[in-house]
Amino acid sequence: MSSSYVHGYGTSEVHRLQDQATTLVDLLHADTGYPAGAQVLEAGCGVGAQTVTLASRSPHAHFTSIDCSADSLVRARQTAATAGLTNVDFQQADIFDLPFARQSFDHVFVCFVLEHLARPLEALTALRGLLRPGGTITVVEGDHGSTYFHPDSDYARKAISCQVALQARAGGDATIGRRLFPLLVAAGFAMPHVSPRMVYVDASKPSLVDGFIRKTFTAMVEGVRAPAIDAGLLSPGDFDKGVAGLYRTAEPDGVFCYTFFKGSAVNT
Amino acid sequence: MSSSYVHGYGTSEVHRLQDQATTLVDLLHADTGYPAGAQVLEAGCGVGAQTVTLASRSPHAHFTSIDCSADSLVRARQTAATAGLTNVDFQQADIFDLPFARQSFDHVFVCFVLEHLARPLEALTALRGLLRPGGTITVVEGDHGSTYFHPDSDYARKAISCQVALQARAGGDATIGRRLFPLLVAAGFAMPHVSPRMVYVDASKPSLVDGFIRKTFTAMVEGVRAPAIDAGLLSPGDFDKGVAGLYRTAEPDGVFCYTFFKGSAVNT
Repeated sequence: MSSSYVHGYGTSEVHRLQDQATTLVDLLHADTGYPAGAQVLEAGCGVGAQTVTLASRSPHAHFTSIDCSADSLVRARQTAATAGLTNVDFQQADIFDLPFARQSFDHVFVCFVLEHLARPLEALTALRGLLRPGGTITVVEGDHGSTYFHPDSDYARKAISCQVALQARAGGDATIGRRLFPLLVAAGFAMPHVSPRMVYVDASKPSLVDGFIRKTFTAMVEGVRAPAIDAGLLSPGDFDKGVAGLYRTAEPDGVFCYTFFKGSAVNT
Repeated sequence: MSSSYVHGYGTSEVHRLQDQATTLVDLLHADTGYPAGAQVLEAGCGVGAQTVTLASRSPHAHFTSIDCSADSLVRARQTAATAGLTNVDFQQADIFDLPFARQSFDHVFVCFVLEHLARPLEALTALRGLLRPGGTITVVEGDHGSTYFHPDSDYARKAISCQVALQARAGGDATIGRRLFPLLVAAGFAMPHVSPRMVYVDASKPSLVDGFIRKTFTAMVEGVRAPAIDAGLLSPGDFDKGVAGLYRTAEPDGVFCYTFFKGSAVNT
């Protein structure tokens, strides 16, 4: 997995992810809460952008938040400390070689992680093994193929395709959101339920125009400029036209649509 | 406007539209109701697929439902009579030459109409002139560019593009849904509000698998097979692969996503 473009790494990416979590927090987290005493595994916490929301919304549950990157965990611990969280333990661990006993968690939460994995189905199956019977998994992923906007722009769509192609070359799938239901089924979970979380932005929602169109989505696409050009996916001029096309959708007559998917299921 | 492909015309299309209205009725209509005595103009009622829902949900309002097609109106009158509706008057009229006095309606309802018009902004502006001050307009449109699915299929996307291209050649815009907000603003309405109505279908929703993936969306795409091939947009073999790709998404591991947009605004 190339760390040169994958989001979640690098200083500006940290800010982008934190902006994203603040902007989208209700959309993605409003219906997630864990009871007092519950043992919850957050698999792939990255820099802790979701951890803060997750743990503060369930203050009497206990979270074990893992990530494979020691650098990300340093950031995550800082973020959690700044937020005054006392119900999270951070631990470096590989999602394919998890240092926990079978059935040791009541719940698992996974957000923006499967998209980076070459074997998402194996990851889900491994995570299911850590859940007690009756325990739940919650998975949140984006889907870049869900993106459309007004005015439409061929260049903007090509720039987005660069991100999708780079993520695919690194073994991931930037359009995994739509696949959550069949993945949960294939991993052996019961009662799978997936709901789309569409971000619809027009000029009546200025905070999303700035927070989502500009600072989240377009900033993410801009972040792959160098690797996309290095890989010969698009010329510098065409890439910049694409980014300009995305910013154009933030004008008063613009509209932008993107959909996250949130799935939940039970281990029987 | 070529009537050889535009949906809403032809016998099988009538059934498809009625299937569609039945399947999607709550998604599109649940939040529309008019008070007793209200005078409501339904502009572009076609074969009456929406009229029945609209008028039966607001039994004490009075509807004037117009269409430019005499043939469609014959069907619409039959449908309304079968449903026992007594609060609808049907009338043949051109949306660009409306035979009504200014400010003669309390509300206007437009569903799956603007997508077929070369000048949707002018249509909205003309309709605004028929509304009393404080009257509302409600507009519902689809957006074929909002379609994505699993498994993904290049051929399926190309087959959908045929429909979009044919509708564009006829002066319409099959991706107009995303433009409702700027159109309502440009037409001079106040308080515009647009909400997406996403149809998310996976195997946990068998009625939508059949009613939406197969009988509504794929049936619509299949309906443009002959004109798409005649226009040289796709070879017969490739078109059929596209249709097969769409049906494939109705299998147990498939997922299908489509978004309608519903907008409302006020005439000041």
